Amino acid sequence: MITVGIIGAGRIGKVHAENISKMRDVRLKTISDLYVESVVPWAEGQGIENITNQYQEILHDEEIDAVLICSSTQTHVPLIQEAALCGKHIFCEKPISFTIEDTMEALDVVKEKEVLLQIGFNRRFDPNFKRVHELVRSGQVGDVHIVKITSRDPAPPPAEYIKTSGGIFIDMSIHDFDMARYIVGSEVEEVYAQGAVFIDPVCKEVGDVDTAVITLKFKNGAIAVIDNSRKAVYGYDQRVEVFGSKGCVSVENDLPTTAKLLTEESVATDKPKYFFLERYKEAYVEEIRSFFHAIKYNETPLVTGEDGYQAERIAHMAKASLRANSPVQCYKKKSLLT
Amino acid sequence: MITVGIIGAGRIGKVHAENISKMRDVRLKTISDLYVESVVPWAEGQGIENITNQYQEILHDEEIDAVLICSSTQTHVPLIQEAALCGKHIFCEKPISFTIEDTMEALDVVKEKEVLLQIGFNRRFDPNFKRVHELVRSGQVGDVHIVKITSRDPAPPPAEYIKTSGGIFIDMSIHDFDMARYIVGSEVEEVYAQGAVFIDPVCKEVGDVDTAVITLKFKNGAIAVIDNSRKAVYGYDQRVEVFGSKGCVSVENDLPTTAKLLTEESVATDKPKYFFLERYKEAYVEEIRSFFHAIKYNETPLVTGEDGYQAERIAHMAKASLRANSPVQCYKKKSLLT
Amino acid sequence: MITVGIIGAGRIGKVHAENISKMRDVRLKTISDLYVESVVPWAEGQGIENITNQYQEILHDEEIDAVLICSSTQTHVPLIQEAALCGKHIFCEKPISFTIEDTMEALDVVKEKEVLLQIGFNRRFDPNFKRVHELVRSGQVGDVHIVKITSRDPAPPPAEYIKTSGGIFIDMSIHDFDMARYIVGSEVEEVYAQGAVFIDPVCKEVGDVDTAVITLKFKNGAIAVIDNSRKAVYGYDQRVEVFGSKGCVSVENDLPTTAKLLTEESVATDKPKYFFLERYKEAYVEEIRSFFHAIKYNETPLVTGEDGYQAERIAHMAKASLRANSPVQCYKKKSLLT
Amino acid sequence: MITVGIIGAGRIGKVHAENISKMRDVRLKTISDLYVESVVPWAEGQGIENITNQYQEILHDEEIDAVLICSSTQTHVPLIQEAALCGKHIFCEKPISFTIEDTMEALDVVKEKEVLLQIGFNRRFDPNFKRVHELVRSGQVGDVHIVKITSRDPAPPPAEYIKTSGGIFIDMSIHDFDMARYIVGSEVEEVYAQGAVFIDPVCKEVGDVDTAVITLKFKNGAIAVIDNSRKAVYGYDQRVEVFGSKGCVSVENDLPTTAKLLTEESVATDKPKYFFLERYKEAYVEEIRSFFHAIKYNETPLVTGEDGYQAERIAHMAKASLRANSPVQCYKKKSLLT
Repeated sequence: MITVGIIGAGRIGKVHAENISKMRDVRLKTISDLYVESVVPWAEGQGIENITNQYQEILHDEEIDAVLICSSTQTHVPLIQEAALCGKHIFCEKPISFTIEDTMEALDVVKEKEVLLQIGFNRRFDPNFKRVHELVRSGQVGDVHIVKITSRDPAPPPAEYIKTSGGIFIDMSIHDFDMARYIVGSEVEEVYAQGAVFIDPVCKEVGDVDTAVITLKFKNGAIAVIDNSRKAVYGYDQRVEVFGSKGCVSVENDLPTTAKLLTEESVATDKPKYFFLERYKEAYVEEIRSFFHAIKYNETPLVTGEDGYQAERIAHMAKASLRANSPVQCYKKKSLLT
Repeated sequence: MITVGIIGAGRIGKVHAENISKMRDVRLKTISDLYVESVVPWAEGQGIENITNQYQEILHDEEIDAVLICSSTQTHVPLIQEAALCGKHIFCEKPISFTIEDTMEALDVVKEKEVLLQIGFNRRFDPNFKRVHELVRSGQVGDVHIVKITSRDPAPPPAEYIKTSGGIFIDMSIHDFDMARYIVGSEVEEVYAQGAVFIDPVCKEVGDVDTAVITLKFKNGAIAVIDNSRKAVYGYDQRVEVFGSKGCVSVENDLPTTAKLLTEESVATDKPKYFFLERYKEAYVEEIRSFFHAIKYNETPLVTGEDGYQAERIAHMAKASLRANSPVQCYKKKSLLT
Repeated sequence: MITVGIIGAGRIGKVHAENISKMRDVRLKTISDLYVESVVPWAEGQGIENITNQYQEILHDEEIDAVLICSSTQTHVPLIQEAALCGKHIFCEKPISFTIEDTMEALDVVKEKEVLLQIGFNRRFDPNFKRVHELVRSGQVGDVHIVKITSRDPAPPPAEYIKTSGGIFIDMSIHDFDMARYIVGSEVEEVYAQGAVFIDPVCKEVGDVDTAVITLKFKNGAIAVIDNSRKAVYGYDQRVEVFGSKGCVSVENDLPTTAKLLTEESVATDKPKYFFLERYKEAYVEEIRSFFHAIKYNETPLVTGEDGYQAERIAHMAKASLRANSPVQCYKKKSLLT
Repeated sequence: MITVGIIGAGRIGKVHAENISKMRDVRLKTISDLYVESVVPWAEGQGIENITNQYQEILHDEEIDAVLICSSTQTHVPLIQEAALCGKHIFCEKPISFTIEDTMEALDVVKEKEVLLQIGFNRRFDPNFKRVHELVRSGQVGDVHIVKITSRDPAPPPAEYIKTSGGIFIDMSIHDFDMARYIVGSEVEEVYAQGAVFIDPVCKEVGDVDTAVITLKFKNGAIAVIDNSRKAVYGYDQRVEVFGSKGCVSVENDLPTTAKLLTEESVATDKPKYFFLERYKEAYVEEIRSFFHAIKYNETPLVTGEDGYQAERIAHMAKASLRANSPVQCYKKKSLLT
């Protein structure tokens, strides 16, 4: 039996709490949130034992083995450091931080304290993307030549969120950077980002873009191209295609049902699942199960701090490329492992 | 909080137990099975409070509100009667019995004792079939002219099962008879069944068939045609198509992933989910939630005893048609409601 | 160089004429039609040499090797007989006649005069159905257990046509009967037809139906089920599925394009090609090429008079079954070949 | 009646000749080829009147209204100039030339002599891409944000061809550059090309690549991304997706049939049509019909010399970008029209 606490009961903190509460071999003991009053009714409905606005109660609780950091990004680094010092295993949502330096500092403490750290790249646990990864790893696609990732949100976030998000690359494309690395199995050597503001004028105000096409060149030669939009009116659009010397594998959006309706006017099928909570419902369960499995068997998590670092590094390179309107070849330390 | 007991811890009893154990507002108190020893390790892993080989412990437990009858078919009628007499609400797997008379007797007691009874036609809770039902009910298909149901198992059951199954119509096609009625919203007036033994010689020995095509004529004029096979080598094949005056709706098999692999040799996609446990995983959860919802709000269950009766009636008509090699127009009482 | 004449310049006669006029090795010399004036502008546009209202000009023209009979059904038998007596090879649209006796008489003369006769079952030349046939013949589906054919027209023909059509089975389902035989490779031993009038009240007046579900039992055990409608509001619906011991092959409707449009309201694809002229455009070319190939190399046509006879025999059995509301086991001579 | 001659009886010249020979209102009078002996048997089979190794016979034949230039690229410019001087309308295969200067010179003469010129961007006439274009033009996709074009050949051409091809951008991607312009309806302002040699070492020798990902920035803000490969082992891969403010339209590869085969091992569908002759068979007919239509009604061809110029300009920008490893913003005259 693993005992856990969750810091931050926003949308994603709640998802993890609800998933954990259905597991027989994990005990969710405490959840903390700054606005504890607004969380109490939900938490009681879930049967969560302790609710607090003091995250320290979690970190200093000797019964608790692991902590999920689901609070806002600027709190991640101090919380990771404090949790590591308290000897807790850590699951942290992406990104680790808004700067490479902060991320490096956090990872240093994790390494020193020898706690496990898993980063919240939930898409690796989606059955479709897992299958793509398997088919590539098993060699059925051959050498990877081109990876194409489409990743479009159904609607832009509120202006306040955009302003503190760190920009589209670190906030949204970061998932795609991780996916590209995960599939290709090599590190990115060059990034070229093209972007535009088509949807949300707030992006323009804060120097961000809402539409982007990013080309990645990998050390093993593979080229990946990612297209992002903050607003696909038809729903969450999440697809991957991998083209290689022996073939091509692609995955489409998941649909709520397979229904096809033919009438005099049209032939219609379902729209994609609306957003990440629907599309990645199963992936969130698997993600957190995988974290507990790593703890139980003392294994390296499937998504490491290095994975978080690399995806952030690509995001910063993309940002630099967009500003310079030029490909960017290198950015800080190539890896924290070497 | 509803407290329940389960009689029978075979494959389907376990599915229900595991689903209930994840619900916060239902308490699974006791599970009974004749072979209790073999069930103990699983039950303990699930945290089930009481395990017994005496189903009476469930029926006579005043804390228990409802019972799930998941034991073999020949036990259904006496258990339904006994449970109803004990004032328990009842969920019973299909079929209620092997004869119309037995089924009528069981339903009489249920009616008299005014307990709720839901029959285990799980497919009504599958998202695909629910969508078909909704589209038909909303009038988007217009008047229903033709319903086509494909229902093929991946592999025949063991010889021992075949021998005591009551035959393909009451054991397997019964789900399709219910689906046809559910979609059409009218009662069957005529049945014609054509069948053959292609797969399993045991069927021939016991006068059963393993392949069947059944035509149903409904009171409202609609025609349904069902094709069944005990062995589709590519997996569980479960599809429905409804054709009407305003259009046509169809649903396909659910696939594990949307992956498409193109190579020099072929273009390949996933096979259908293997069998009912995979395909109807979500439907089983919804089915049992729906039962508890009916209890909580004292509503008529979505699948009633009358629904069980009608599907069995069609099954017996199909059997008679196959023997006579002729359409069969009527069979016993048209309804227990009138 | 083969020289041909066409009798009847209605819709289908024109299709054949236009296809032949693009072939370099076939000369379309004469076309006859009762209403020759209305045909002249079209015929001149096609560069057809002779246009006449006397079909005898074709049959007695020594230059002409082969004749295409595209006139109305009641003229088929005398024209076949006269053409055979004149030593012409014959392509005749379906059905040969409205009665088995007339068809037998026509085929007797053809046999005696040793001319080639091909019947217009154009669907055998459709790439999709050809592929199904190939996959079944190559053994990839194993022994055939169940064949499902969906065949629905986009709109009912005019009342006048319905009245003289011979009924849905001989007019429309006959194509499906031929397809079922072609795929299964065995003869039909029993027919059960269920039907209704849902669409066109004229059908009721003349004792016909506009919706039908027909079950065929073949000598080799296979069961086929065909569903027909005179009106599918979404277009021409032509699909086949073959289920066997080793697998299942299915073909869908051809679409004009592969376009998929996702908007806020819906995900829409193309409707099926509207009707037979669009769907079977390529098949009509292949059909007539196949006929000329058989003449050139003195081979048995791909669709013989016996094929015409068998499909008509099934149609008459279906009609008898519908009237008797009972399966019909036999009807006249089982084959003209034996 | 339009009378035409064809210069060059290679693969594509033959395609045009065979298509024209089926048209009733166009007369193919003469075809010229350097290696006339090897062409004679084919030409006779097609019933072509004159065959010659002197292309001047075509240009100086007063009966001939239009000429199709299907010879190798380095001959295009002098032939266009000579044909224009002879007052012939011109259809010329892509590219017009290997250099912007040569292309400009050719177009100058065409302009001066006021003959019609159509460039062989056949894909604009493919039903799928036409539909995409229509849906974008009709506003159903809204403002175009992102265009994605996949264009992969089934196998690399011979080494000799590669060496004289002018490189992948001018030889292969040029079709995609035209398609992107055609869909977006704006001009390209910036090009970034990323490329690699994965398949054919000959490419490396001659400074070419066999795999490329190209990002185009349009004047109206739209971003297009094209991925090319000389070798897709599964066949010719030709897809387009357009994402905009109101939705997304995509087209897939055309398949020979819709057959789906489910077996114990796999679920398999057809591979894409093998290469351009199969995939664009219908498009080639429409392309040349469109050219004759423009001549007959004295209309601007659907693909103009300016279209040829712009696509070549993008190709040269791509080549420059690849060499510089940097986006390229401008290249020569922005348009020949202004």
